Amino acid sequence: MEEKVLKAIQDEYSDDFAWCYGCGRLNENGHHFRTGWQGDNTITIYKPLPEHTAIPGFVYGGLIASLIDCHGTGSASLALQQKNVEKEGGNSEPPRFVTASLKVDFIKPTPHGVPLKAIGVVEEVHPKKWKVYTEVFAEETLCAKGEVVTVIMPATFKQK
Amino acid sequence: MEEKVLKAIQDEYSDDFAWCYGCGRLNENGHHFRTGWQGDNTITIYKPLPEHTAIPGFVYGGLIASLIDCHGTGSASLALQQKNVEKEGGNSEPPRFVTASLKVDFIKPTPHGVPLKAIGVVEEVHPKKWKVYTEVFAEETLCAKGEVVTVIMPATFKQK
Repeated sequence: MEEKVLKAIQDEYSDDFAWCYGCGRLNENGHHFRTGWQGDNTITIYKPLPEHTAIPGFVYGGLIASLIDCHGTGSASLALQQKNVEKEGGNSEPPRFVTASLKVDFIKPTPHGVPLKAIGVVEEVHPKKWKVYTEVFAEETLCAKGEVVTVIMPATFKQK
Repeated sequence: MEEKVLKAIQDEYSDDFAWCYGCGRLNENGHHFRTGWQGDNTITIYKPLPEHTAIPGFVYGGLIASLIDCHGTGSASLALQQKNVEKEGGNSEPPRFVTASLKVDFIKPTPHGVPLKAIGVVEEVHPKKWKVYTEVFAEETLCAKGEVVTVIMPATFKQK
């Protein structure tokens, strides 16, 4: 049975912030990455499309970088939302993060044709700045590691 | 007049290595990034598609990461090809690189709707391992900086 993220933070973003090519549910042409909790970790699952090749048989690095990037912002949003709920109780709007920096180590060629799983650990650096450590697996094989520093979306973005 | 890379290394890759979603000329659905020399720098120019948004008006980070990634492998190929030509004279097959690591610092929100220019400086770490420092501009504005460590494609890729 195909593994699936049931409850994803991207489903809760307000419409204004749901247009990301990586993870926006309203972007018709995008990847629709969806990130949820899996125990204390975060998880995003995505099966690359036929055209997402580096060379035939392997996934191109840009897709893995995109996955780690959006998985990072989604994971930070999940974590801060959880913190806000714990502090204030009840429901909490998912905060929207943007990426300050992204680091990817490509460990093994990533085989094409199977779902990729990004598994994240979230760390609070300070209330507006979070770090997400991600491992990307193709089936059981660790193919890439990522580190995303992500910050709450600044006003320069929102004013557009 | 739209600026364009006239002579790109990706035009010279053998057909087997021209399927990358980022920079493969044979990948019908891909970005077709093309990387050439501009003086002592390397350059890749790409105008994001309408759907390549983070939020409306800004380019999503995954595309910038992909651009820096393929610009990095292309730049290293250009540099090693040039070195080989200087050493051996005549024509030289463009060596095919893969990315070992990718680092992106997002400096400013990247405006959507204008061509992006990745400008690279290439450094030889050792004969099979090169580093490419890249700055990504939207018009005159520096929006992101990247660092790619790239290595000659290992046999594990080619054996597929």
